[in-house]
Amino acid sequence: MAKDKPRRPRAEPPKGFRDSFGADVTERNLMLERIAAVYRLHGFDALETSAVETVEALGKFLPDVDRPNAGVFAWQEEQVPGGGSGDWLALRYDLTAPLARVAAQFRNDLPSPYRRYAMGPVWRNEKPGPGRFRQFYQCDADTVGAASVAADAEIIAMLADALEAAGIPRGDYLVRVNDRKVLNGVLEAAAVAPEQAADVLRQVDKFDKVGAEGVRALLTQGRTDESGARIDGVGLTEAQTAPILAFLTARAATNEATLANLTAAVGGSTVGAEGVAELTEIAALLAATGLGPDRVVIDPSVVRGLGYYTGPVFEAELTFEILDDKGRPRQFGSVAGGGRYDDLVERFTGQKVPATGVSIGVDRLLAALRARNPAETTARGPVVVTVMDRDRMAEYQAMAAELRAAGIRAEVYLGNPKNFGNQLKYADKRAAPVAVIAGADEAARGVVQVKDLILGAKIAAQASVEEWKSQPAQVEVPRADLVETVRGILAR
Amino acid sequence: MAKDKPRRPRAEPPKGFRDSFGADVTERNLMLERIAAVYRLHGFDALETSAVETVEALGKFLPDVDRPNAGVFAWQEEQVPGGGSGDWLALRYDLTAPLARVAAQFRNDLPSPYRRYAMGPVWRNEKPGPGRFRQFYQCDADTVGAASVAADAEIIAMLADALEAAGIPRGDYLVRVNDRKVLNGVLEAAAVAPEQAADVLRQVDKFDKVGAEGVRALLTQGRTDESGARIDGVGLTEAQTAPILAFLTARAATNEATLANLTAAVGGSTVGAEGVAELTEIAALLAATGLGPDRVVIDPSVVRGLGYYTGPVFEAELTFEILDDKGRPRQFGSVAGGGRYDDLVERFTGQKVPATGVSIGVDRLLAALRARNPAETTARGPVVVTVMDRDRMAEYQAMAAELRAAGIRAEVYLGNPKNFGNQLKYADKRAAPVAVIAGADEAARGVVQVKDLILGAKIAAQASVEEWKSQPAQVEVPRADLVETVRGILAR
Repeated sequence: MAKDKPRRPRAEPPKGFRDSFGADVTERNLMLERIAAVYRLHGFDALETSAVETVEALGKFLPDVDRPNAGVFAWQEEQVPGGGSGDWLALRYDLTAPLARVAAQFRNDLPSPYRRYAMGPVWRNEKPGPGRFRQFYQCDADTVGAASVAADAEIIAMLADALEAAGIPRGDYLVRVNDRKVLNGVLEAAAVAPEQAADVLRQVDKFDKVGAEGVRALLTQGRTDESGARIDGVGLTEAQTAPILAFLTARAATNEATLANLTAAVGGSTVGAEGVAELTEIAALLAATGLGPDRVVIDPSVVRGLGYYTGPVFEAELTFEILDDKGRPRQFGSVAGGGRYDDLVERFTGQKVPATGVSIGVDRLLAALRARNPAETTARGPVVVTVMDRDRMAEYQAMAAELRAAGIRAEVYLGNPKNFGNQLKYADKRAAPVAVIAGADEAARGVVQVKDLILGAKIAAQASVEEWKSQPAQVEVPRADLVETVRGILAR
Repeated sequence: MAKDKPRRPRAEPPKGFRDSFGADVTERNLMLERIAAVYRLHGFDALETSAVETVEALGKFLPDVDRPNAGVFAWQEEQVPGGGSGDWLALRYDLTAPLARVAAQFRNDLPSPYRRYAMGPVWRNEKPGPGRFRQFYQCDADTVGAASVAADAEIIAMLADALEAAGIPRGDYLVRVNDRKVLNGVLEAAAVAPEQAADVLRQVDKFDKVGAEGVRALLTQGRTDESGARIDGVGLTEAQTAPILAFLTARAATNEATLANLTAAVGGSTVGAEGVAELTEIAALLAATGLGPDRVVIDPSVVRGLGYYTGPVFEAELTFEILDDKGRPRQFGSVAGGGRYDDLVERFTGQKVPATGVSIGVDRLLAALRARNPAETTARGPVVVTVMDRDRMAEYQAMAAELRAAGIRAEVYLGNPKNFGNQLKYADKRAAPVAVIAGADEAARGVVQVKDLILGAKIAAQASVEEWKSQPAQVEVPRADLVETVRGILAR
């Protein structure tokens, strides 16, 4: 009975996990290496922590989590003498929590300030969905122990360089910079009560969607949305909304003008003035290192995630349009963000340690580059040396070795060679640009057949029967000319 | 009371896990990338599976495990509607089990044979100990679906190339090749009963330690070891040991002679003759691709792990001596191994799929290179631009940016600049080769001070007071000559 037969395991990864093949892996690694090179050039050192941390060390920094350990993959170690500790362990959910642990653990050995970069997968135990994965890459750089906004400015400039190194040309991205303290100052200038602040921030965050008038309505008496639904307002007076709207619409043609608008918006607030001073200093530092408004601008509308940060914040967005699944043009949006934050090391040591950092969403950045240049990502496979005569395998291996010695990616067909059609189908599946064919007849005459598969595919699609029969995509050359012939075809 | 205060989290990773810093990370990545380049040149494609698999898909292939899930880090997903599946999940313990799952899952889409490489961390839930870690790197290449020993020969040749690409010069490593079938044939020729086979293999495995006479004693009546302890023998007759010892000592000056010895050792065994024929074909294929006995030899003494494999097996060892912790010279030993195995895809699909592969122990290989060339691993830090005058931060950032634009790793000191001594201590901790110093006086005169910290350290160690005072390690140059001056010092 079928029931008695042990069920075969399902050949699939857990829900929300995926595999990456070929060019997907090598392109991501190349991008990570290019970004890392920029980080290193700026004096940042690599750090690679283990994937597993104690739940205690990770802390509970994940947003929107009400159950303990929810959002992370966690398990308890067995408690065995001399072995497992009984500790709760978990997969890291970001690269910042492990940095905090390292900065505390090695505080006497690490240089201070400590500039480090880290890249690798992180894991989130979230409900999987289309395009939402439970393992993804982060690529971070942080400076721990530097209170000066020069550290923020450095990371902002480095982010712009990193995007260009990753393949986004100047003009196709913009880093927008804001400061949490300016927002605090604006709330102060608007006399927003502390218990109202969260509600106000939630409405301010809708600026990109509903515009200035929409936010004004939401902050006062509420509004009716497109579907006719009534949305309650926060209940501020019109007068109170003035500094907030002045803040949201402060971005002007130049950083100087934006900063002047912000100075007006924060009124007499001390913390607000401090924020404007920080942004002024950042703008000056960026200008000194040659980063103009084509790359970085002061932009008060950057509010996302402000709650987490304590000072300067920034976000990089791609400014070119791509086509979505339905062929409609849309902005690609944000690919990186960061800012200044506290409490990094404090929970371990009790000492406040200032820190600032950036995180680049590598998978999003790769998706953007592909959406823009789909042609460039068509990876070319290896040259395939076919097997006409099983006894001459050593000679086929020698041909592949010669091609490799010339730097040409090459492989011998290693399946059952009986059916030659299967070999050409294999070459096709491998996206091979060239097939090498050499049977007993060729060996006797000291020649090889070299088949240009790309030209061959074109001819097969377009040629007349006569053209097809003349086989212009296949040449017979002396065995000694194999490498040169292949090189010539690949250079076309 | 202290008891009421919440305990601060411990700033340490879980036992058996560790962090990698700076050059440790970049050197490993560089080695992985060099090995990957060799794999790609041979037509192997990258595969990156997720770190997490279902326990069901991973199977229980870990050796020496009697409890379910022992040896792996595993946990059960919560069962929630629309979310967690209640499945048991686990961290992968090697890169082969995920390959099996992928080869089964995508069997209709992948080319066949499928050549893939994979590199990344794996996790073992083992008792941690000195030098034994629960997360470590593997770097594998496997060919799935090729029954021909040409696939084994290709991987053996590729391993030799990969070791050279990783920085092991020819002559400093040797790949030793054996075949599981030869050993089976020898046991057949020796008329070893099936129930004795495991015992015999255990003794054979001690050949490297106790030598031929030791193994002979262990296979027959037993022996007394150095401590005087009596070790029981397996109870074979002297006649039975003859083919086994002929096998163990079969390695001769040439592969031809070794193969002749093996043919004699397997006597009339069919499977043994098959094994010798496989080794003969591998030797011919390797010779055809130019791999001489300085790189690869047939060596029957490669027995470790033979139980897992079904055909050709091989191991790469480093042949140079290093000094151990106590300064005594010792052989470094094995850094890579592999062979042909079955049952890869079968447990998923019911179909036998032949496979062969290699795994390089990247961490061991790195340790070997460092043990050999300790000097080369002293990483140089960035140029440090010191801060004499906080108000001139923009100018210091501009200097660092200029240096970077010339490809020179550079950073501005971002700690509290008040104490200049701290800045030089920082530069020392960073292993900075050069410090740039520019105060108000230098700015007024349009110059900068450039300090050669490597020469400076030498002078501090050796110079007289007069030499020291003359400060030959520090030069004052026009501001415009900053980059050229630093470049000149770095080129020394």
